[in-house]
Amino acid sequence: MATLEDLGVSAFINIVSAIAFLLLFAVMRIQPINDRVYFPKWYTSGGRTSPRRGSGGRGVGRFVNLNLWTYLTFLNWMPGALRMSQAEIIQHAGLDSAVYLRIYILGLKIFVPMTILALAFLIPVNVSGGTLFNLRKEIVSSDIDKLSISNVSPGSQRFWVHLLMEYLFTAWTCYVLYKEYDNVAFMRLHFLASQHRRVDQFTVVVRNVPHVSGHSISESVEQFFQRNHPDHYLGHQAVYNANKFAKLVRQKERLQNWLDYNMLKFERHPGKRPTRKKGFLGLCGERVDSIDYYREKISELDKKIASERQRVLKDPKAIMPVAFVTFDSRWGAAVCAQTQQSRNPTRWLTDWAPEPRDVYWRNLAIPFVSLSIRRLIISILVFALVFFYMIPIAFVQSLANLEGLEKVAPFLRRVIEIKVIKSFLQGFLPGLALKIFLYILPTVLMIMSKVEGYLSISSLERRAAAKYYYFMLVNVFLGSIVTGTAFEQLYSFLHQSPTQIPRTIGVSIPMKATFFMTYIMVDGWAGIASEILRLKPLVIYHLKNMFLVKTERDREKAMDPGSIGLPETLPTLQLYFLLGLVYAVVTPLLLPFILVFFAFAFLVYRHQITNVYNQEYESAGAFWPHVHGRIIASLLISQLLLLGLLSTKKAANSTPLLIILPVLTIWFHKYCKSRFEPAFRKYPLEEAMEKDMMERASEPNLNLKAYLADAYLHPIFRSIEDVETGEVRVDKGQSYMSSPTRSEFGSSSPQYVYHYEIEP
Amino acid sequence: MATLEDLGVSAFINIVSAIAFLLLFAVMRIQPINDRVYFPKWYTSGGRTSPRRGSGGRGVGRFVNLNLWTYLTFLNWMPGALRMSQAEIIQHAGLDSAVYLRIYILGLKIFVPMTILALAFLIPVNVSGGTLFNLRKEIVSSDIDKLSISNVSPGSQRFWVHLLMEYLFTAWTCYVLYKEYDNVAFMRLHFLASQHRRVDQFTVVVRNVPHVSGHSISESVEQFFQRNHPDHYLGHQAVYNANKFAKLVRQKERLQNWLDYNMLKFERHPGKRPTRKKGFLGLCGERVDSIDYYREKISELDKKIASERQRVLKDPKAIMPVAFVTFDSRWGAAVCAQTQQSRNPTRWLTDWAPEPRDVYWRNLAIPFVSLSIRRLIISILVFALVFFYMIPIAFVQSLANLEGLEKVAPFLRRVIEIKVIKSFLQGFLPGLALKIFLYILPTVLMIMSKVEGYLSISSLERRAAAKYYYFMLVNVFLGSIVTGTAFEQLYSFLHQSPTQIPRTIGVSIPMKATFFMTYIMVDGWAGIASEILRLKPLVIYHLKNMFLVKTERDREKAMDPGSIGLPETLPTLQLYFLLGLVYAVVTPLLLPFILVFFAFAFLVYRHQITNVYNQEYESAGAFWPHVHGRIIASLLISQLLLLGLLSTKKAANSTPLLIILPVLTIWFHKYCKSRFEPAFRKYPLEEAMEKDMMERASEPNLNLKAYLADAYLHPIFRSIEDVETGEVRVDKGQSYMSSPTRSEFGSSSPQYVYHYEIEP
Repeated sequence: MATLEDLGVSAFINIVSAIAFLLLFAVMRIQPINDRVYFPKWYTSGGRTSPRRGSGGRGVGRFVNLNLWTYLTFLNWMPGALRMSQAEIIQHAGLDSAVYLRIYILGLKIFVPMTILALAFLIPVNVSGGTLFNLRKEIVSSDIDKLSISNVSPGSQRFWVHLLMEYLFTAWTCYVLYKEYDNVAFMRLHFLASQHRRVDQFTVVVRNVPHVSGHSISESVEQFFQRNHPDHYLGHQAVYNANKFAKLVRQKERLQNWLDYNMLKFERHPGKRPTRKKGFLGLCGERVDSIDYYREKISELDKKIASERQRVLKDPKAIMPVAFVTFDSRWGAAVCAQTQQSRNPTRWLTDWAPEPRDVYWRNLAIPFVSLSIRRLIISILVFALVFFYMIPIAFVQSLANLEGLEKVAPFLRRVIEIKVIKSFLQGFLPGLALKIFLYILPTVLMIMSKVEGYLSISSLERRAAAKYYYFMLVNVFLGSIVTGTAFEQLYSFLHQSPTQIPRTIGVSIPMKATFFMTYIMVDGWAGIASEILRLKPLVIYHLKNMFLVKTERDREKAMDPGSIGLPETLPTLQLYFLLGLVYAVVTPLLLPFILVFFAFAFLVYRHQITNVYNQEYESAGAFWPHVHGRIIASLLISQLLLLGLLSTKKAANSTPLLIILPVLTIWFHKYCKSRFEPAFRKYPLEEAMEKDMMERASEPNLNLKAYLADAYLHPIFRSIEDVETGEVRVDKGQSYMSSPTRSEFGSSSPQYVYHYEIEP
Repeated sequence: MATLEDLGVSAFINIVSAIAFLLLFAVMRIQPINDRVYFPKWYTSGGRTSPRRGSGGRGVGRFVNLNLWTYLTFLNWMPGALRMSQAEIIQHAGLDSAVYLRIYILGLKIFVPMTILALAFLIPVNVSGGTLFNLRKEIVSSDIDKLSISNVSPGSQRFWVHLLMEYLFTAWTCYVLYKEYDNVAFMRLHFLASQHRRVDQFTVVVRNVPHVSGHSISESVEQFFQRNHPDHYLGHQAVYNANKFAKLVRQKERLQNWLDYNMLKFERHPGKRPTRKKGFLGLCGERVDSIDYYREKISELDKKIASERQRVLKDPKAIMPVAFVTFDSRWGAAVCAQTQQSRNPTRWLTDWAPEPRDVYWRNLAIPFVSLSIRRLIISILVFALVFFYMIPIAFVQSLANLEGLEKVAPFLRRVIEIKVIKSFLQGFLPGLALKIFLYILPTVLMIMSKVEGYLSISSLERRAAAKYYYFMLVNVFLGSIVTGTAFEQLYSFLHQSPTQIPRTIGVSIPMKATFFMTYIMVDGWAGIASEILRLKPLVIYHLKNMFLVKTERDREKAMDPGSIGLPETLPTLQLYFLLGLVYAVVTPLLLPFILVFFAFAFLVYRHQITNVYNQEYESAGAFWPHVHGRIIASLLISQLLLLGLLSTKKAANSTPLLIILPVLTIWFHKYCKSRFEPAFRKYPLEEAMEKDMMERASEPNLNLKAYLADAYLHPIFRSIEDVETGEVRVDKGQSYMSSPTRSEFGSSSPQYVYHYEIEP
């Protein structure tokens, strides 16, 4: 129960730290030594190959900016971030990024009029309600509460104003959402229409190709599509199960890197040949010459790779029952992707092929039954994770206390008993398990999504984002309002009546307003400021640069900024929408905080998208239906909670009127779904035909078969090529190694594909 | 709380009445005079034109069967019902009927092993549980309860047996359901594959054709499909808004019928020209010559019809933004039906065309936005109807008491005050409103479904069946278990916790077993026996024959048995599945009652389908996914209720194990949905291509364009033809008048379409 002053202090601290971050950023970003941390996008897009130099010339100027003038204009990244037009951003960073930025614009569009209305009408109504002034001092109520709905006396006619506002806010949100959905759907179709020829427009991925005895998978595919799509079928590409092979190639890459490093070392100090110990991790065993050691290891691996390659190519079991089928027109591919092929609906499942760089190859071979079992198991696991994650953590915490530590390691007792260390450990240990859990949570959710068997990295990210959203909704939003762990909440919700739940939550909502204001300032304002500072990547990059970077390839790996991280950023954003919508009527004072967040985060992310993050795939805004759906869900939650809150306020006349709102909102959602969602799921034939005809008119002699021939070439062939030619060049290796955590082959961009085709 | 004897008495009464019905049926069906009531199917299918004669020759034998031998074999309809093989039934009455009969077989397959297991294991366990024997006599408990789960003492280890049985029963039900879904899906595909050429295989219905200024709808359609389906588009048929025209034609039909009647009358009594009064309903006004009067009226109407026809044909607004688009191959139609056509997903909506006789023409012109608003309103209305239907009825009941009647009509006071009449009215009036409501309920639900805007009669019937199921579930099943109106239930459920609800219901379930046994005997046994007797149609047919039937056409109308009435029979059947599954573990003694129902009803409906009901459309078993889904829902309900029941029985160890069951069941449902449902919603391209190729091989010179030309000719053209030729013949008029209650044009079967094409 903070007073206005408490809140002011908190705001002051957070604003100061945000400004400090910004100042630090302003200083750091103009240092040439940090150029690869703050402007990696320009390197990956080929716009820059070495750091911009300050005017300080060579010497120290290579690392530190000595031009004092640039220090004075420390906020000039802001207009810089706004300089690019939307079309330029689409050009520069893809439609996904542009659509992502529109979420912030959407936030502003929704909340600016809402804030003005709420401040102008609701706050005066709440203040003049004045129950809290009459209460005795002992009853805890903060200054914020006097501006909130808590201040209106039960049974008051003033609740009609809140009701009216809720209607207005819902109508306005729906209107803006509708406009925005329309806009994004148009942008998507326009983007797809205006793009140049793309291989995925002509390709369909077929899963669950049945095994016919006496026929290979390739023959089956050929026969089936020649029979059922005779006019448009062009060819297909088989998919190999090359997971073991890929592992060997990765091993070789690593050894090659060590070899390069040792050779570089030897070049610099020609007198001394580098050595290493032969045993585990180079820590024990006989000391040998490093260069010879790695050369030998590599040649061993080469043999293994060659034999594995033979096995994969010859063993019919290595061909998976999946294929990329190409058609001679977009129309043909659109037809095949949208129709059911086989009598048995679990066979010959066709779907749009993702972009080649978006394919998650590992999941291509999962059969239908396994897929449905996997989804069942994962949904149970997600449920357990959301509601019961505290149980294992509490268990670990109970183990990780000092007594436990002393029992396991009695020799530590003397150290532990030192008072400073003891108090540090006592404060630190219990939180450690939780911190580690929260840190690895996005990775865990991503792994879960991978197990579910989706085919493209983009859909994996969307699934992981959904799971993270559920976690945030239950553990951050509900967990902050209703005290106790999620498991306790679940238990109490199961034992309360459906009408009681919104009441229980609704009542505590106004009381938690200050908490969420602080949350927005810490996570939203200071958090976003630290996002632009990129403290962690900055430190890691410099650490890596000092200790780990052995070759140029390593430097590029250390620089890799990754993508914008939709699995984490989307749910976070959606949480702000939820907070804004829930508190708009209850405690309008929270809205300005949200507004500041949206405006500031918009600037920051526009800057980051221009300068930092790398686009790893292009889904053409495929995540928008999720964004839309979750804002609708937030609207529903806000309506139900207001209903609960008002019903405890004895506003009996107005409450029944609120029941209509959720019904209308659900209907609006259904309408939008049928109106816009097909634009995100299907490719209209009208569009396909138009593009086909235009292309035929402009390029009548196009050899489409050659263009498509190796588009979905399995990465194994590219690696084999490398082996064949016997030289693994640095830039080449990087093409399928740049982000091995995402997938073995996921990051090989189509440019590389064509590059390879041209080369031999 | 009935004892076993009470139940025995009830069973005796119901069995006796069932046997009485059967005996009556055996006597009635062999009377030639009733032949059109008990064997109308043979008339409509053309197998019979006049009643089978008994051996009694002419004279009385025309009406009464005098052959005594046939009276002795009164049960011979039973083997007769079983005589046809499934293939013959499909041939005779369509796949829908054959699949409908499989629901009964499914019931037997599920419940026969269940009954054996339950009687062999559960009853001994329950009897030996023996708590109820120890209780004092005052506590009400029936003999049935001693055989049910109520008899097992709380906290007993015996509940493990019930738990195991629930697992077994669920597994068995799922296994049978899976097999059956597989089987029905195969039957459907086989049926579609083995059928001869059907117009709907080549036709797609397009809705929401956009208005382009300067273009007519026809031009737009032509242009769009020639552009986007250039290889397969053949032609299209416009749809006219001819509702007013149809009304006029119906009026004329009625007058024509009166004219025929009067002319027949005049023929029989040539001396006396029939006359009628000119005014309202022929009750007042000047007396005129009937034949002249109707002739004059008809010629007036003819003029009106001609001018309306001109208006419809000339007014571009009469062409609705809908069209039936035909393709030159099944493949082309399948592709168009399954793909998205336009950038705007609300335009050019394509879907499989229903059979011509299955089209519900009135709904063709509903625009997209209106459609989504209609569905919202109807779902709210259905919710209100299910939960609040008692409110208006109670209101009407409060008005329709004797005091009210006396106030409205004081002159009746004297009659009302007579004691016999008074007591009769007092017993009769309050129930009247409810009876009327229940009687018209299916019609009301059908009208609601029509408002929702589905295109085919088959889908309308499925929607109406779904609504009726919700009504039965809430008002019959829950309403019998939890006392009080549905509204009171809703209120109490909203104020109970989600875990409390299954407990509340679960506890009362064993107590209601005897009620449901009686219900099954009354509604199931005696009800089915009265179904075969067809008492109502019998009486109505003879009444109509005596008073209303003026012409041969009227006799055929009076004979029309209608279809099997899926909107009512499906939900009733599903209720029996629900009862069986819920009581299988709780009160196994109920299972034999259900078994008898399924076996008996199977025989009866097999007989009725062979001899009575007329097939009005062929949906190829499209209702099976609903049957499957509702049995799964019943399984879930039974599991939740058992969970609730056991949790009150302090069977704490076993209860958590039951939570797994619903999760697995839902997963099974999802799996089945993705495995089989596409077979009911989509037409696989493999299938389409195969049929196309076979047809091209066998009939290379087929003129498909001519074959399809007028298949979906709007009924208005057929009527106009009649007007053109100036003669409305009886058999011709009947073609679009046979069941005007379904839709104006719904009943015109495709045979008539071709008939018309050949004629002029």
